[in-house]
Amino acid sequence: MKLNKTLNIIKLGGRVIDDESKLNMLLHAISQQSNPCIIVHGGGDQVSELAERLGVESTFVNGRRVTDQVSLDLVTMVLAGVINKQIVAKLQAYGVNALGLSGADANLLLSNKRGTEMHDFGFVGDVKAVNRNVLIDLINNDFLPVIAPITHDGNGQLLNTNADTVAYEIAKALAHQYQVNLYYCMDLAGVYEDIANPHSLIETLDLNVYQRLKAEDKIQQGMLVKLENCFDALASNVYQVMISNADNIARSLQGEKSKVTAIRLAEEVR
Amino acid sequence: MKLNKTLNIIKLGGRVIDDESKLNMLLHAISQQSNPCIIVHGGGDQVSELAERLGVESTFVNGRRVTDQVSLDLVTMVLAGVINKQIVAKLQAYGVNALGLSGADANLLLSNKRGTEMHDFGFVGDVKAVNRNVLIDLINNDFLPVIAPITHDGNGQLLNTNADTVAYEIAKALAHQYQVNLYYCMDLAGVYEDIANPHSLIETLDLNVYQRLKAEDKIQQGMLVKLENCFDALASNVYQVMISNADNIARSLQGEKSKVTAIRLAEEVR
Repeated sequence: MKLNKTLNIIKLGGRVIDDESKLNMLLHAISQQSNPCIIVHGGGDQVSELAERLGVESTFVNGRRVTDQVSLDLVTMVLAGVINKQIVAKLQAYGVNALGLSGADANLLLSNKRGTEMHDFGFVGDVKAVNRNVLIDLINNDFLPVIAPITHDGNGQLLNTNADTVAYEIAKALAHQYQVNLYYCMDLAGVYEDIANPHSLIETLDLNVYQRLKAEDKIQQGMLVKLENCFDALASNVYQVMISNADNIARSLQGEKSKVTAIRLAEEVR
Repeated sequence: MKLNKTLNIIKLGGRVIDDESKLNMLLHAISQQSNPCIIVHGGGDQVSELAERLGVESTFVNGRRVTDQVSLDLVTMVLAGVINKQIVAKLQAYGVNALGLSGADANLLLSNKRGTEMHDFGFVGDVKAVNRNVLIDLINNDFLPVIAPITHDGNGQLLNTNADTVAYEIAKALAHQYQVNLYYCMDLAGVYEDIANPHSLIETLDLNVYQRLKAEDKIQQGMLVKLENCFDALASNVYQVMISNADNIARSLQGEKSKVTAIRLAEEVR
């Protein structure tokens, strides 16, 4: 049953952010889409590179990383500043009416500061509300929203938020208005049964396979959170979730056959 | 004859950007306005401070300052990143639906790269077109646009543009839709007959007085360009231009009597 219009939400992360020719290739593929798109981006290596150049060291309290004011300013500068505006300018050059937003703009992403008095994470936010109407209005007016994962608490405080999480929260928030395809772009071509074996890419990863791989300790730490988010998104009516690298996602968007890991709740193929 | 709705365009510059309590005070005054507002902001001292911390030195070619790629990234980070988003988050906290934009976003400010083969200024842009419809739509939908003076050339290149110029180009572009009051916020309370004498503030500066002061070499270099812009704006149907510091502009916005320099084309008082 296809009631709603398709919407592609593409989370750009990994080396594609720092690799101009790959970024141009993927943005060009996105510019060719007839369906509306939303981009959520991370920061590649640029945040840590700038931190290193400034001699800013990560702060840890009781063994936990804390986002202090200096680190928050750095991620805001890099994500909402230079990376967001470079992506927007490139898309404009491809004839797409891109508009960059942080979570503070138009009150798009309201979040709660994470942590308790016992465990302070600093200026880190967990998304509390997505202002879906702003996104729907922008899409209806042919804008392509480009979203930097900086949120706010509604009291004037910006907060650093995980870009994967922002992508899936937005996907969930729009899953009743659109048939949402959520793409996670990363460095790997997808999820592997054996990370050392390039031929072991899992083309369809359902909840059963995932539970088995997790039990067998075959999923890397960083991928665990991403996959939990993916299954959570599917359980919240997101239509499809796909994980791959920039080349394969560009091919997939253009309707070509390409290697990706498609995440499914159950084994059935839609 | 008051045909159009009033629009306040406030250019924030000088120390107010770096002085949190003054910035809060002025943003609060703006949040109390019943007329729509647009904010254009500069970067205070934060661009040069960051450049110094990063050991980035200004580049000069044939005695002219050149904005190279590193400097462009710096201003984009500071202006479109941290300063823009902090202003937006503060306004959201005051109940104003602020939305931050660079000139690339929604193709708001298209510019030409300045210079010739002989005199390259680097990545500096002169505004070629203001997308006024985007601003009118945002205002009609109760958004307050907060604009960072980074423009684009339409071919994917971001360009650094003077914030004063961005403010007056936007004022001119909207002068037929609105009765535009253009406020230039700076460190001084206005234009002085004698900069050493605090009692010599000129409350009304018309073109005759301006020409006289200029002939007598009484206007500082930085103020000359600002005042040329002001008279140009008035000649292009902008209703009023006022120059002062944050405190006095806040008072003026709130309808209180305050010391500002009001710029007029001719001597007549409206």
